Amino acid sequence: MPKINITDVILRDAHQSLIATRMRTEDMLPICPKLDAIGFWSLECWGGATFDACVRFLKEDPWERLSRLREALPNTRLQMLLRGQNLLGYRHYSDDVVRAFVTRAAANGMDVFRIFDALNDLRNLKTAIEATKAAGKHAQGTICYTVSPAHDTAGFVRMGRELAEMGCDSIAIKDMAGLLTPFATAELVKALKDSVELPLHLHSHATSGLADMCHLKAIENGCDTIDTAISAFAGGTSHPPTESLVAALRGTEYDTGLDLEAIQEVGIYFHQVRKKYHQFESDFTGVDTRVQVNQVPGGMISNLANQLREQNALDRMEAVLAEIPKVRKDLGYPPLVTPTSQIVGTQAVLNVLTEKRYESITNEVKGYLQGRYGQAPAPVDAALQRQAIGNAEAIDCRPADLLEPELARLQGEIGALAEGDEDVLTYAMFPEIGRAFLEQRAAGTLQPEPLEPPPSETAANAPTEFNVAVH
Amino acid sequence: MPKINITDVILRDAHQSLIATRMRTEDMLPICPKLDAIGFWSLECWGGATFDACVRFLKEDPWERLSRLREALPNTRLQMLLRGQNLLGYRHYSDDVVRAFVTRAAANGMDVFRIFDALNDLRNLKTAIEATKAAGKHAQGTICYTVSPAHDTAGFVRMGRELAEMGCDSIAIKDMAGLLTPFATAELVKALKDSVELPLHLHSHATSGLADMCHLKAIENGCDTIDTAISAFAGGTSHPPTESLVAALRGTEYDTGLDLEAIQEVGIYFHQVRKKYHQFESDFTGVDTRVQVNQVPGGMISNLANQLREQNALDRMEAVLAEIPKVRKDLGYPPLVTPTSQIVGTQAVLNVLTEKRYESITNEVKGYLQGRYGQAPAPVDAALQRQAIGNAEAIDCRPADLLEPELARLQGEIGALAEGDEDVLTYAMFPEIGRAFLEQRAAGTLQPEPLEPPPSETAANAPTEFNVAVH
Ligand SMILES: [Co+2]
Ligand SMILES: [Co+2]
Repeated sequence: MPKINITDVILRDAHQSLIATRMRTEDMLPICPKLDAIGFWSLECWGGATFDACVRFLKEDPWERLSRLREALPNTRLQMLLRGQNLLGYRHYSDDVVRAFVTRAAANGMDVFRIFDALNDLRNLKTAIEATKAAGKHAQGTICYTVSPAHDTAGFVRMGRELAEMGCDSIAIKDMAGLLTPFATAELVKALKDSVELPLHLHSHATSGLADMCHLKAIENGCDTIDTAISAFAGGTSHPPTESLVAALRGTEYDTGLDLEAIQEVGIYFHQVRKKYHQFESDFTGVDTRVQVNQVPGGMISNLANQLREQNALDRMEAVLAEIPKVRKDLGYPPLVTPTSQIVGTQAVLNVLTEKRYESITNEVKGYLQGRYGQAPAPVDAALQRQAIGNAEAIDCRPADLLEPELARLQGEIGALAEGDEDVLTYAMFPEIGRAFLEQRAAGTLQPEPLEPPPSETAANAPTEFNVAVH
Repeated sequence: MPKINITDVILRDAHQSLIATRMRTEDMLPICPKLDAIGFWSLECWGGATFDACVRFLKEDPWERLSRLREALPNTRLQMLLRGQNLLGYRHYSDDVVRAFVTRAAANGMDVFRIFDALNDLRNLKTAIEATKAAGKHAQGTICYTVSPAHDTAGFVRMGRELAEMGCDSIAIKDMAGLLTPFATAELVKALKDSVELPLHLHSHATSGLADMCHLKAIENGCDTIDTAISAFAGGTSHPPTESLVAALRGTEYDTGLDLEAIQEVGIYFHQVRKKYHQFESDFTGVDTRVQVNQVPGGMISNLANQLREQNALDRMEAVLAEIPKVRKDLGYPPLVTPTSQIVGTQAVLNVLTEKRYESITNEVKGYLQGRYGQAPAPVDAALQRQAIGNAEAIDCRPADLLEPELARLQGEIGALAEGDEDVLTYAMFPEIGRAFLEQRAAGTLQPEPLEPPPSETAANAPTEFNVAVH
């Protein structure tokens, strides 16, 4: 009887999606005993944005958060999201840094490494997978799901088989944009389960309001573990509610075996916590199916709106949205996820604002066209590539093969500010804000960003004038 | 190829569920041309609460709303929810009033009458179904879904067959509390489709976050039409988002054929409209799976909280929630829907606050135990019945069989305040507020309740400090 496992993302992706990654460790620890007792397959708790927000805004040491969560959650796997050779940063790191990072994360308590590459170039996952296995931890190979003429089920299945050959312990489908539909999920999951002998995990954002239906179809087709979020931080750009999926499967052959009432208690806790972070709520947290029409992820649209607003050019949004698929095509249809979403989005804005496509080309696009991010899913536009990189030759090796070891250099640069390897890695991930953090720590001046006081409790907010009918 | 139809509930249940039924006609009419062009199977736009709110708070004539919607929506079926022999009120009306009401509703533009009875006593649907057919309109027989020892799939199927024999044009499953789970839905829908040769509609509230999954399983098992709400008023105690279901089914054998982009435009309109009614938003609009554990509908819990607050007894909530299933059992397991939800809930509060069960018995429970609401799904508690009604004999006929015709009397009572039969029926539904409305109309003093000004637009509400990653 297939028991379905749950990875709860409340400590990472849920608050990243809904309150700009601002949840503090102090709001996680009190509920950890209850969270730990639920029996989740894992708790996702670390990733690029949580690391960034800790150092940049919360003035928390992200490594310390990890250790404290490890201590508070002795019975549950801790899981992180790792951008392959980019780790938690925005560039390719040398292999020695990748190995050091994975080793230290494992030593501080990480159990499951969900490893992805924005281009689905598996060479960019290789060192991280090897290091995870060397540390005796769970390596989860990730397929970034997207829709394009260069992507199909057969290609994703090929990728799944290659990830298995690389030694992964499980496979994740990562639908960062909420592009999956229930029946597309059914087909993809079935094909993967038919071809790859590994447990399959599904991560799908609820942006379009489809993710719970996708989960359901995935489960019916053999998916082993689904990602959900405790309801207080579920829905919208986050994930389907844990409680709903547990309730949906209860008493069926797919029962999660989890105690719904215990999860509801955790939900009430986080419902209160969320109020503390009201200043980070976005105006719109409902369902947005536009990505199903234009394939542009919701997070990208917010970013573009900000960029355009700064240029007093919000009225060009429609043009930018129309330009994005063209730039994406020129670049060989990369999945749109960090950092490719930024690379494509920024170039699309430039193409529109300069009123001449590629009159100005960003350094990131130049690097991309040189092959410095890896291999694009489909051939890039040859003329654009010539224009961008001139006579320089594009590389076709694994980008990190060209990088010298750099750990020693980084150690030297940060010097005595680093009290251990973890600090060196913090500096490596975020050179400027990492250094500033370490300096402030040394000076004893770390100061978290202030929080606005909670809005006054309007006790009688709910209408009470007449009986609510059940209808 | 089974094309799936959509009934959109934006004009009735969606705003009833989320903003206390307060949407005004002036906010419906501007979008009607676009709504009308979508191609919904029907638009639900009328029911007990909308009628009540029009007369009580908005000081709109509900009949005029109907006529204006009819005019503005020439190409789409208009649908209403009718409480069987209760019509839109809280008591049994005589057959002549039922016939007059259905006739006038049909004449003013109603096409589809979804007719239910809180006890699923089909005798209470009989006159309304006959009147609907006599008016040449669509009679939809409704099964109120609930979970109890007295309810099972076989019983619901029997009900479906009887509704077909009574001349219904279609069957609706009405899951007012969000009790359905996906696999329970699959079983029920399959059984009904196997036994009843009528189109099947599903109405399930998203309270527990399960309704879209229920819809999906219903569709896979032969359900023809699902109820959804334009996303701006979807989710929570409302319904799954129309856009999400349309996107989920696009390109599959269940394609709705509707234009997703056109629906998105309508969604943007209603997103703006919702802000106008911010004062009626409840504090909590997320997912609440508690009904899956305690079977008490969310709307009932809000009501109970209000009742207890007035008595300074909010701390007895847990006791009341524990008492409700007991009262429900004593009453033969009625589905909890208007008016049985109020009858059971109020008695449960009394049982707890008096600290002796049934020391005080409400008139409604007495009437219920006399059989004045119809036949309970299971035998009621005999001792309680004796205690409540003494030596009086319980009736076992159709309750309305004991009612004399009353239309002429009502006409006489309201006299010249009624400019037509519609006004008499308004008075019949709501004797006090209906009369007050007609008096104010005559005096030219109708004044809608005031709306609070919208909260200041916090343009920079969304976090803009750093790039939003797509994760
Ligand atoms: Co309803
Ligand atoms: Co994610």
